[in-house]
Amino acid sequence: MNDGYISLAHGNGGHYMRELIEKLFVRHLANPLLNVDTDAVALPEMEGDLMVTTDGFTVQPLEFPGGTIGSLAVYGTVNDLAVTGAVPHYLTLSTFIEEGFEIAQLERIVISLAEAARASNVVVVAGDTKVVRRGEGGGLYLSTTGIGVRSRHLQLGPERIRPGDAVLVSGPVGDHGIAVMLAREQFGLQGELRSDAANVLPLTQALLGLNGLRFMRDPTRGGLATVIHEICRSTKLQVRLNQPAIPVREQVTAVCEMLGYDAMYLACEGRVVAVVEAAQARDALTRWQALPQGCDAAIIGNLCEGQAHAVLETELGGHRMLEELEDDPLPRIC
Amino acid sequence: MNDGYISLAHGNGGHYMRELIEKLFVRHLANPLLNVDTDAVALPEMEGDLMVTTDGFTVQPLEFPGGTIGSLAVYGTVNDLAVTGAVPHYLTLSTFIEEGFEIAQLERIVISLAEAARASNVVVVAGDTKVVRRGEGGGLYLSTTGIGVRSRHLQLGPERIRPGDAVLVSGPVGDHGIAVMLAREQFGLQGELRSDAANVLPLTQALLGLNGLRFMRDPTRGGLATVIHEICRSTKLQVRLNQPAIPVREQVTAVCEMLGYDAMYLACEGRVVAVVEAAQARDALTRWQALPQGCDAAIIGNLCEGQAHAVLETELGGHRMLEELEDDPLPRIC
Repeated sequence: MNDGYISLAHGNGGHYMRELIEKLFVRHLANPLLNVDTDAVALPEMEGDLMVTTDGFTVQPLEFPGGTIGSLAVYGTVNDLAVTGAVPHYLTLSTFIEEGFEIAQLERIVISLAEAARASNVVVVAGDTKVVRRGEGGGLYLSTTGIGVRSRHLQLGPERIRPGDAVLVSGPVGDHGIAVMLAREQFGLQGELRSDAANVLPLTQALLGLNGLRFMRDPTRGGLATVIHEICRSTKLQVRLNQPAIPVREQVTAVCEMLGYDAMYLACEGRVVAVVEAAQARDALTRWQALPQGCDAAIIGNLCEGQAHAVLETELGGHRMLEELEDDPLPRIC
Repeated sequence: MNDGYISLAHGNGGHYMRELIEKLFVRHLANPLLNVDTDAVALPEMEGDLMVTTDGFTVQPLEFPGGTIGSLAVYGTVNDLAVTGAVPHYLTLSTFIEEGFEIAQLERIVISLAEAARASNVVVVAGDTKVVRRGEGGGLYLSTTGIGVRSRHLQLGPERIRPGDAVLVSGPVGDHGIAVMLAREQFGLQGELRSDAANVLPLTQALLGLNGLRFMRDPTRGGLATVIHEICRSTKLQVRLNQPAIPVREQVTAVCEMLGYDAMYLACEGRVVAVVEAAQARDALTRWQALPQGCDAAIIGNLCEGQAHAVLETELGGHRMLEELEDDPLPRIC
């Protein structure tokens, strides 16, 4: 295949593209529904509300401790379905590859994508490959659309949130952001930290039995702070967060202090924020802590009347406003 | 909005991103299903087989006579559904924007996308926006996934093709490829030619009543020649094309001769190639010619036993092989 590097001919619809698709993508992603000889695929019948989401991925570097852009694309997409209460089933995969990209690296990324898909019990049912000229791409961008089903009439959403409700997070925040950042050579830092990127379906399914469950979201771009802001904006309520209760790994705190970041704004890729009726908050916490992914889960705050702000109550009894994110602290993190 | 140009902050999940999405994307794409405050959208129930396709778009320049990357994304995606016999209903839209991109141009492109969606009777139900650093994108890339429905158990596909079947094309080939190329300043050429980009659903629906309809495809990347190759490869039959019968506009022929391109390999974005039982070929042609989009439709060849090659019978009674596309004649054409 063109001495190991992607050429424009790999994207032109002809011989080389077919070979790339068959020998690399299909080889690792094969499943009974994936048919490269058709324009559109027929999906089996599904019971429930059909749920759809889409996401683009530009993370840099493309491989980092705990994942690659490929596994991230899978988890990012299935998690967007899971937090609505859906079970993900199918993915489509659109790939933008820069001319000159190493085919061996592309294969590693596709393998990691395939593993994440198996771990999430989803299959890639349709794909597309485009090659852009050298200097017109950042190596590799992926775009995925996820399709799943949700029990009919299950309603979760910020409109269900009431004053007094509790806010929970399923695990430490900021791991993904810092792991990706440390993987960038420019910082000259190293650490043991791995991205938290993972399928959150076990976490979301664990809470669906609670009739006091109001809302779930995965805190990706913009981090926990951005989810809290969305809750304030939608509900017109105040969220008071108890800073000491928010789980943050020591390494994340250390890097944040060193480089001037705030873990509250850093992307997670395997965490869930949930809002639950206060009376069921302990139950929700117990359900999460019973799961390997949720052992560090915590109740981190609550909703109350008052100005629709996100307020962080600090260890020393003070409080500060969590402002809405403006400048980007870490581009190309997801 | 940051003095008229996209900044990294437009992609970080925070304030500027929300503003960009609300004031630009949602403003033009609004519909009852599009909800930027949710991770995944619930689609209404649909009757029939659920069909899915995905496609990436990198066309350069982003605006060209007859369309933009936005309208192309819509037509490219709905056409992939239409040629399987499906009716397109929903699109997801994933956007990769390069830092420094002009917001006014982005808006023109989104407006053109919205117009194409209305013309195709589809709505955008979910979206995602990523901003990549200057020098890491080619201005703008789009990725769309299309969802539609097809009558249950409708079977079209190359496996239905039989020796003797006729091959039809719905209109002149190569318009899109040449229109985009002429729009590139580097060629210093100008012309009246417009891209043929359009929704082919009226063409595909017109043939669904024919029980002799075997297979349809839109000849995009790699052009008519590539579709014919796919037919040969799948069926192990020979396709004999009657070159004088293949509709090609004079301007397309002229530019091809000047620059050494072959119209058979140039992308169309509003044409359909159909294979029909010989006895119904005239009926199919009549149905197409009755439509404004199909007035130049033609029967261009037939399937026969023999080596699985694409053979072009020329005006003078000779014939030449249509080779499979190898090098890319025109990168970033779709």
